[in-house]
Amino acid sequence: LRSECKRGFFMVNDRRTKIAVLSIGDELMYGEIADTNFAHIAARLYSCGLPVERHPTVGDDAEAIASELRGLIAAADAVIITGGLGPTSDDRTAAAAADAFSRPLQLNREALAHIKRFAGRHGGEISTADEKQAHIPAGADLIHNPTGTASGFIIPADACRFFFLPGVPREMTLMLEETVLPALLALQEDTRICRTKVLNVFGPSEAEVGTLLEELASPADGVSVAFCVEFPVIQVKLRAEGEDAAAVANSLVTAAERARALLDDWVFAEDDDTIDTVVAGLLQEKGLTLAFAESCTGGLLAKRITDVSGSSAYFLEGAVTYSDSSKIRYLNVPESLLEKKGAVSSEVAAAMAVGVRNASGSDIALSVTGIAGPDGGTQEKPVGTVFISLADHDTCETRNFLFNGDREAIRTITAFSALDWLRRHLLAR
Amino acid sequence: LRSECKRGFFMVNDRRTKIAVLSIGDELMYGEIADTNFAHIAARLYSCGLPVERHPTVGDDAEAIASELRGLIAAADAVIITGGLGPTSDDRTAAAAADAFSRPLQLNREALAHIKRFAGRHGGEISTADEKQAHIPAGADLIHNPTGTASGFIIPADACRFFFLPGVPREMTLMLEETVLPALLALQEDTRICRTKVLNVFGPSEAEVGTLLEELASPADGVSVAFCVEFPVIQVKLRAEGEDAAAVANSLVTAAERARALLDDWVFAEDDDTIDTVVAGLLQEKGLTLAFAESCTGGLLAKRITDVSGSSAYFLEGAVTYSDSSKIRYLNVPESLLEKKGAVSSEVAAAMAVGVRNASGSDIALSVTGIAGPDGGTQEKPVGTVFISLADHDTCETRNFLFNGDREAIRTITAFSALDWLRRHLLAR
Repeated sequence: LRSECKRGFFMVNDRRTKIAVLSIGDELMYGEIADTNFAHIAARLYSCGLPVERHPTVGDDAEAIASELRGLIAAADAVIITGGLGPTSDDRTAAAAADAFSRPLQLNREALAHIKRFAGRHGGEISTADEKQAHIPAGADLIHNPTGTASGFIIPADACRFFFLPGVPREMTLMLEETVLPALLALQEDTRICRTKVLNVFGPSEAEVGTLLEELASPADGVSVAFCVEFPVIQVKLRAEGEDAAAVANSLVTAAERARALLDDWVFAEDDDTIDTVVAGLLQEKGLTLAFAESCTGGLLAKRITDVSGSSAYFLEGAVTYSDSSKIRYLNVPESLLEKKGAVSSEVAAAMAVGVRNASGSDIALSVTGIAGPDGGTQEKPVGTVFISLADHDTCETRNFLFNGDREAIRTITAFSALDWLRRHLLAR
Repeated sequence: LRSECKRGFFMVNDRRTKIAVLSIGDELMYGEIADTNFAHIAARLYSCGLPVERHPTVGDDAEAIASELRGLIAAADAVIITGGLGPTSDDRTAAAAADAFSRPLQLNREALAHIKRFAGRHGGEISTADEKQAHIPAGADLIHNPTGTASGFIIPADACRFFFLPGVPREMTLMLEETVLPALLALQEDTRICRTKVLNVFGPSEAEVGTLLEELASPADGVSVAFCVEFPVIQVKLRAEGEDAAAVANSLVTAAERARALLDDWVFAEDDDTIDTVVAGLLQEKGLTLAFAESCTGGLLAKRITDVSGSSAYFLEGAVTYSDSSKIRYLNVPESLLEKKGAVSSEVAAAMAVGVRNASGSDIALSVTGIAGPDGGTQEKPVGTVFISLADHDTCETRNFLFNGDREAIRTITAFSALDWLRRHLLAR
């Protein structure tokens, strides 16, 4: 087990469908990209109670692919294959499948019509490269690709079913959800149910979260706990499994309540919500507007807030005041203050927040000034020194931080700290 | 092959050592993390002319691990195993190796001494969990772990050698470099050398880049071409391989020159350089200062420029003017212009660039206004409509774009287009 991702215990269920995933691509074997497709497939299957048991990876080599396919017939009940269905000559998966299952490649009319609808110019004309994608092993059932030219296909061999998907993540993901997962769930003999709940935590370290949740780590009602670090967030993953849907849901609700109570307000979001979407929701709910004045984060705060669509409803403006002169001009920071206290100081942070709030007329303003490094640190103000101010109608508060890490880590955790403070401030209003 | 990452041809060398990599970890089989360890190992081996031929992955299951190990004895000359050497009960790789190779686990004094030096408190006292890591299969040679408690080990079986490494990336990486790679290179019968060169291209599509480089795709002097898409960049990867270092270097230089000539000024950076570092270098070299006025990119341009350390030398300020009122106040955009033309218009883009340049006194200013979506599009100005203006001492030019994709894609390619324009402008000065 890698130290990045620890877990308590997980239940094992021997009656489950045996699933294998075969990843195909030279770019994987040459280490050019990490296999995020497999991680996605494995996570989706696992959350449906269908853990992957075998996972070979091969390059774009027809013989090696065919050999793996043959070997999997007896070893699995279902095999998901990704990659190698594209238009170019180095996409060899369909030919390898034809070889492995002794089903010659044939022009599939339905697949061809799909390609023409998708890629066809003037009157359905398509390139030879695109037409290649319509040649699939004889008798295979098509898997519809809603966002690309390459259809997937299903081939049965003895008691095993092979699901061939393209390697393009967006296409693979949709086809997995729409066709493969429903088919696999239908294959399953029992009806064990898995549900997961993710609590996103910011503040304590992974070890501290582990200690806080120690009592949850002992199995209760088939609920397990796992931790994952996505800097600077600790994800607490609760997973309940059982045969009765209501009992599983109930166990998970109880475990989540216990975890929330133990973690207190360190939990800033649940499941797919992020600090950005939570803050966005709170601002909208309370009808408040926001402005930023950023120095060391250099626009990262504004970028994050405007990642959320519809942000123009509450985000008025951000001033990325990297130079002293811009702090004076935009934010009305007194020149004498910059000279006396320095641009990285609690006084200047406060003046920046008040300045951008006055200028923009926003309800709330956040400002950030600090030293992200690697240069610019002093004995008195080392790299990682950060001042954040929050100003509203009544007050302006400033907090002083000292963060560790490289430039990117310091900027990331600074922006996160500012947004988490904003979240807590909005909750308390 | 995934469409993200295609390649022309690669040489095959049958005399090479056959290498397999076995990844171990439940967190991989559950899809909690992508296997970046494998990507790292495969890339390092590939760059040494030692491509990985087999890559199975299994969970933390002693029987499954032992079965994979036995199967690899005849299939490979060398096997690298990562994961499952940690202190906890779910780390089962050493026990599985003991089983597979019929070598009982024994307390290894050298490994124990290492753990005591590393983790020992008061007088070398260590926990039972840590001591577990000193139990390794009898007769195995240790691999020194310079940054952690878990020693690796080497077991020979018939003609194959098995290198066991921990799964913690920092530890695995160092042990790979210090012990495993030198041992593998010593195993190799020939002394082939590989060198790579990456050209980063922005503008043409992957298909267009492929067509432009068609003549390079035919093998010449042992040089191969591969394409990788890292949106919105196309990476052209040239790779030369041979037995003579000078000849390999020479082939690569020649191929890179031909590729550069064919791709013209679409190549914005080489190897590890990015558009951000290239623009930073040009601004510094020419002693020019920069300011931004951003609407739809919402701080992304400023964030990217300030990702580069030392950016305060040339980046003065960025105005993230999301509201009309901030465009009027900060950038002096006439209210009548906003009313007449709308915030997303070439006239307002130009006024924003001129406005931020006047206010900041920068040499060059870039402005961006557009509709990133998913909402806000109209028939006349659909989602993806973007205006970018570049102002300097003499002129202000505005360009109109229509980008495809979701909000993130539109923001990303907008920022990239602005920075690439700036690069071309700086080169032409």
